[in-house]
Amino acid sequence: MASQQGRHFLQIPGPSPVPDRILRAMDMPVIDHRSAEFGRLGRDVLDGIKTVFGTTQPVVIYPSSGTGAWEAAIVNTLSPGDTVLMAETGHFATLWRQIAARFGIEVDFIPGDWRRGADPAQIEARLAEDRAHRIKAVMVVHNETSTGSTSRIAEIRQAIDRTGHPALFMVDTISSLASVDYRHDEWRVDVTVSGSQKGLMLPPGLSFNAISEKALAAAKANSMPRSYWDWQEMVKINANGFFPYTPATNLLYGLREAIRMLHEEGLENVFARHQRLAAATRAAVRAWGLEILCENPAEYSPVLTTVMMPPSHDADQYRKVALERFNISLGSGLGKVAGKVFRIGHLGECNDLTLIGALSGVEMGLAAAGVPHRSGGVQAAMAVLEGQEESNTRKAAVA
Amino acid sequence: MASQQGRHFLQIPGPSPVPDRILRAMDMPVIDHRSAEFGRLGRDVLDGIKTVFGTTQPVVIYPSSGTGAWEAAIVNTLSPGDTVLMAETGHFATLWRQIAARFGIEVDFIPGDWRRGADPAQIEARLAEDRAHRIKAVMVVHNETSTGSTSRIAEIRQAIDRTGHPALFMVDTISSLASVDYRHDEWRVDVTVSGSQKGLMLPPGLSFNAISEKALAAAKANSMPRSYWDWQEMVKINANGFFPYTPATNLLYGLREAIRMLHEEGLENVFARHQRLAAATRAAVRAWGLEILCENPAEYSPVLTTVMMPPSHDADQYRKVALERFNISLGSGLGKVAGKVFRIGHLGECNDLTLIGALSGVEMGLAAAGVPHRSGGVQAAMAVLEGQEESNTRKAAVA
Amino acid sequence: MASQQGRHFLQIPGPSPVPDRILRAMDMPVIDHRSAEFGRLGRDVLDGIKTVFGTTQPVVIYPSSGTGAWEAAIVNTLSPGDTVLMAETGHFATLWRQIAARFGIEVDFIPGDWRRGADPAQIEARLAEDRAHRIKAVMVVHNETSTGSTSRIAEIRQAIDRTGHPALFMVDTISSLASVDYRHDEWRVDVTVSGSQKGLMLPPGLSFNAISEKALAAAKANSMPRSYWDWQEMVKINANGFFPYTPATNLLYGLREAIRMLHEEGLENVFARHQRLAAATRAAVRAWGLEILCENPAEYSPVLTTVMMPPSHDADQYRKVALERFNISLGSGLGKVAGKVFRIGHLGECNDLTLIGALSGVEMGLAAAGVPHRSGGVQAAMAVLEGQEESNTRKAAVA
Amino acid sequence: MASQQGRHFLQIPGPSPVPDRILRAMDMPVIDHRSAEFGRLGRDVLDGIKTVFGTTQPVVIYPSSGTGAWEAAIVNTLSPGDTVLMAETGHFATLWRQIAARFGIEVDFIPGDWRRGADPAQIEARLAEDRAHRIKAVMVVHNETSTGSTSRIAEIRQAIDRTGHPALFMVDTISSLASVDYRHDEWRVDVTVSGSQKGLMLPPGLSFNAISEKALAAAKANSMPRSYWDWQEMVKINANGFFPYTPATNLLYGLREAIRMLHEEGLENVFARHQRLAAATRAAVRAWGLEILCENPAEYSPVLTTVMMPPSHDADQYRKVALERFNISLGSGLGKVAGKVFRIGHLGECNDLTLIGALSGVEMGLAAAGVPHRSGGVQAAMAVLEGQEESNTRKAAVA
Repeated sequence: MASQQGRHFLQIPGPSPVPDRILRAMDMPVIDHRSAEFGRLGRDVLDGIKTVFGTTQPVVIYPSSGTGAWEAAIVNTLSPGDTVLMAETGHFATLWRQIAARFGIEVDFIPGDWRRGADPAQIEARLAEDRAHRIKAVMVVHNETSTGSTSRIAEIRQAIDRTGHPALFMVDTISSLASVDYRHDEWRVDVTVSGSQKGLMLPPGLSFNAISEKALAAAKANSMPRSYWDWQEMVKINANGFFPYTPATNLLYGLREAIRMLHEEGLENVFARHQRLAAATRAAVRAWGLEILCENPAEYSPVLTTVMMPPSHDADQYRKVALERFNISLGSGLGKVAGKVFRIGHLGECNDLTLIGALSGVEMGLAAAGVPHRSGGVQAAMAVLEGQEESNTRKAAVA
Repeated sequence: MASQQGRHFLQIPGPSPVPDRILRAMDMPVIDHRSAEFGRLGRDVLDGIKTVFGTTQPVVIYPSSGTGAWEAAIVNTLSPGDTVLMAETGHFATLWRQIAARFGIEVDFIPGDWRRGADPAQIEARLAEDRAHRIKAVMVVHNETSTGSTSRIAEIRQAIDRTGHPALFMVDTISSLASVDYRHDEWRVDVTVSGSQKGLMLPPGLSFNAISEKALAAAKANSMPRSYWDWQEMVKINANGFFPYTPATNLLYGLREAIRMLHEEGLENVFARHQRLAAATRAAVRAWGLEILCENPAEYSPVLTTVMMPPSHDADQYRKVALERFNISLGSGLGKVAGKVFRIGHLGECNDLTLIGALSGVEMGLAAAGVPHRSGGVQAAMAVLEGQEESNTRKAAVA
Repeated sequence: MASQQGRHFLQIPGPSPVPDRILRAMDMPVIDHRSAEFGRLGRDVLDGIKTVFGTTQPVVIYPSSGTGAWEAAIVNTLSPGDTVLMAETGHFATLWRQIAARFGIEVDFIPGDWRRGADPAQIEARLAEDRAHRIKAVMVVHNETSTGSTSRIAEIRQAIDRTGHPALFMVDTISSLASVDYRHDEWRVDVTVSGSQKGLMLPPGLSFNAISEKALAAAKANSMPRSYWDWQEMVKINANGFFPYTPATNLLYGLREAIRMLHEEGLENVFARHQRLAAATRAAVRAWGLEILCENPAEYSPVLTTVMMPPSHDADQYRKVALERFNISLGSGLGKVAGKVFRIGHLGECNDLTLIGALSGVEMGLAAAGVPHRSGGVQAAMAVLEGQEESNTRKAAVA
Repeated sequence: MASQQGRHFLQIPGPSPVPDRILRAMDMPVIDHRSAEFGRLGRDVLDGIKTVFGTTQPVVIYPSSGTGAWEAAIVNTLSPGDTVLMAETGHFATLWRQIAARFGIEVDFIPGDWRRGADPAQIEARLAEDRAHRIKAVMVVHNETSTGSTSRIAEIRQAIDRTGHPALFMVDTISSLASVDYRHDEWRVDVTVSGSQKGLMLPPGLSFNAISEKALAAAKANSMPRSYWDWQEMVKINANGFFPYTPATNLLYGLREAIRMLHEEGLENVFARHQRLAAATRAAVRAWGLEILCENPAEYSPVLTTVMMPPSHDADQYRKVALERFNISLGSGLGKVAGKVFRIGHLGECNDLTLIGALSGVEMGLAAAGVPHRSGGVQAAMAVLEGQEESNTRKAAVA
């Protein structure tokens, strides 16, 4: 049986639905990438994107998937034989580790059970032990898209600071940027990696590195062979709004529109909206009697919620039923939780009613697939949205 | 406070949301309306639209609002001083009557309380009384967009037949076509009036007259002055896929795509979907403890549901709150029910999850506006969607 | 043989090519036509369009073809048996006359040979003779789309004034508005008729009546039955940005964008551009050794140029060859010049290089179709564009 | 003075204008990149693109600029210290060489004057001398976008074969693919590099490697660190239509449409069209009395024509005048011909009339900028287009 007619509910934790305004901004003729008109576009997006990273330092934009920006962070700053400290927060941390390994980097991988973010205390302990400063970088995933746990970047920064360790601090915000509060400069992150297809509400195809002075200096001294990902020519040529090789012009049109939309709503409001939608989703999961994968409330993701299936029920079979019956895409379990969890994305262009529509698809899908659960999740989510909204309004009235 | 970010829920009973496929089909360069390429487009839509009306007779397409097609039905077939029989099913029947009156038509207007469709028995009685055959036409609104009641066209046809009265039968399907089962030929309707912006899922700007042989003959004999709306030149020139004056080419691109989409889903499935969504909506209304304006279950509209506000609560104030808080547009009360009802559209590109999202907006809006109600409407609607879907599946399995 | 790959050259005198910006503006979700957001759109376009007509008086917008706006002008101001004065400038004047006749209007039709505009002296003479003021309106086509001749509206106004005749003055600007200098108020035109698909660069589907106080008063006194086209309710409801029946919302999105584009370029510049493109086209025609249909240089159309075929050559056969070989659409001869002329549109979104591309298609098409001509037309057009452009620049420098 | 109103003529040698059909295909909601629906898209484009490369072997698609695909060819097959043979055909060959150098590859760079393609005889001589088979790869640019010279790939293949040398053969077709006849399998190319924004008529953002079995084997044995560009996982996962990391979904929608369009026109017709447009352009250049940079008629590019400026005239100043006065973008001189040449792109969505429009912009721009030249170039180009077209038609009639 084919999917239902009508609007598809794309509730995976990215790519997230692209707003009409952004799609239409991209649906325009390509222009000469060496023209003055392009230079204005380039400056608009290169300046604008800084406000989203919370930085005044350079942000480079690659025509690539987020995976490319992971690689860029590594090849610009590290050399074969270098050691880095990472935390096993989930599938994507594991993938980033694999990329590092492919480039000859030794990874000290703090093991994890995929149910929480990176532990500042453990990071602090490892760095404190590393008297010789063998560790060149601490690399953390801000929002683990595979698990729905966030890592507390500000606290990790403080942990690093307490040790006085000189390691670079590199953070993956691919699925958190523009959805979750993030402050590249304030938290003194050296390299922030991100991508276009999540909170920025763009199609996939652009990725980012926000780069501190310390990271740029490390790059200058680093002999790892690189070309496409090399920061130095990029940063130099970006100064005038241009790029060292043909940029993905139409995606840049979309990026310009996305930055406008984020500022029209206000980044603070964007972050609060994601928090509210996530709280409503968790209320639904609890009402269904299902378990949330993330065990630490302080680390619940505002971007997605990962739900554990009851034993002996296959999450992928369930997702298939939900797709066919209710035209909704949910995220699959990845890596070692494959088949055991499903993920509900509530990021980017998502509002209260879209979320409730999505959660009703989850709930009716559970029934249709014969997964044991209690009904009432949607009702519980609505209660949260009503209450949250009121408290926001009160706050606004007070302010 | 501005509307929420994200996708707007347009839940008025038309214009209905335009699917991306249709918008994109329209977003193409205009072509020469006298070219062979246009002729192919013209034939595609002129032939295709017949399948939606359930006719093999001519359907003319006007570049106009539905109001124009109402006028066209009148000026082609009637003359000043003629008498017609109409039924006061609601605001739109009243408007159609006013247009007739402007052209000097005497309207025998069977009074109604806006809570049901036209009564076949009353129509039969009036026609039976009319031994002199003064009544030239019976004019009925299939789906009263202002009330959410449908009229039983097949039964009215039978009522007319029983009297042997020669009156033309003219039916307004502006808000029912392509959403509710309709059979121009089988029910021997003489003129079926319709528009683009409801079940056809197009923007407003096209309207239709499906025309029986009897109606065409009446038009030939009719001396009412007319030009833009005149059927005869239109039908003649349409034969080759062209139009007597510049057509709304881009809307015709959209119409071609809409007809494709309706056949891809299957008209029977389209009708069943509207029935299912309407049943779910009514379940929600009942759970809220609110009253449905339509009193006759046999005449519930599959297209929209009109909800009565509790006494001393203003429907428009409620709609305003819902719009501002939840980014949802609901239909206002029109004419004599202004302020007393609101209307929930569930037509066109609407599926289960979109409906639940919309109903959650209605329910949370009731709370936000302080309208007395019970919660649980969304949950009740979900129960219907789950059950209905199963019974459909069973039917499909049997078939 | 099919048309060539690549961009089609739509060089008919309307519908004209729709700019990407306008198509994209229309490619957006439809909104509630009773919402505050719609009210803002309505006011934007209702106010903005006045600047294009050169008026501060009401302009009503119909969801219809231009033909509808012709009818509207008639049914609002005239009654059966009334006499009007028209001039046979070409096919479209003839069609407008036929519509008047269908509504029982007596048309005093000053004969013409389709090679010039309406003659102010003849109009003056007829009005002067009409001591009894039987003539209720003078109706003139500003730009005859079938011939490429314009009528001198300001001079006709003066001619009317000299006679002191009280007739209404009604002008069709369907193919001139926003391409040719036009001043509804300054020239005291009573009804200006127009359409969307020419100088306004929109798809077909909207039409306009700009209405003087005198015309509004005439309408109030006029008993001709009408509804869809009736000005009075339209003007009343327009005051708040709304419409008495469902408007063609997405075309209004496009209209808003079109008005913006016209003001960005500057209406004076728009008019000068059309003049320049027309001059270049005529230079090409003369260089080919072909004859321009319009005989009066003071009345050359800035919008289109009609070219006479050499005797015994069929214009439609030629147009077919040009279309198949060079992917260009040219306008056909209409009415009594069918087959004898073809028309080159150079209006709306047309610039120097597009025009040269188009003229090269005409010239290479003449060769391909074996039509006797001299080559060099394109070269002659380029000479004009180079010279004109310089003189414009000089003027700008001086100003 | 700002650019003229109307359609911009983007006549740089890529990015080339994106057809409306492709833009609209991309302007659709993003889908789950792990869904069955995506799998169908993936297989469509992965299979379809092979027909364009003339191969039945794997073609991998990167979300990246063409520069990335250059790097991919290198890092998959070569190791630091390896030697390759390249020919200095122009700026882009020089850039590719630099990338190789960054990865520690020794480049034997056959010097060139940028006025011809790579010389098969020289390549043969170098390979013949290399008895020790130190040369691991011969790397040639098929169409030098900076100069407008093509290299004769089939002849170079034969030259390599004559020496019996085992070097890999790697060809850059970034600006030739889908515009110029190319046969990856027949010519036994090992790696063909390409990009989306030229003959494929897409926006920039996708790049390609077509890979022979021999190249795949070399990659397996190659220890150069790599991840994003690594072929092996890509080829494995592509087998089911999926990608190892988030693909640029919307660009893939466009690619599917582009492949359809190429086959609708027919690749042979596409190649012939580019040849015809290039011949017309060269005729114009000669008529202007200007010099074509490419000196070898056997190596004229069908994609672009590079024109030498008269001494003491600055090409960039000229391009600026042409842009401001005629709204046309021409390609700048790059590298050592900066300021000395300009480039006319005539690729992708370009047809006869668009080309003539563009050439008129070049010619009128020369006049406007005071560059010494003879007029008549446009006329000369038209003569070619008329003649070519006839001979094509004759051929078609015979066939």
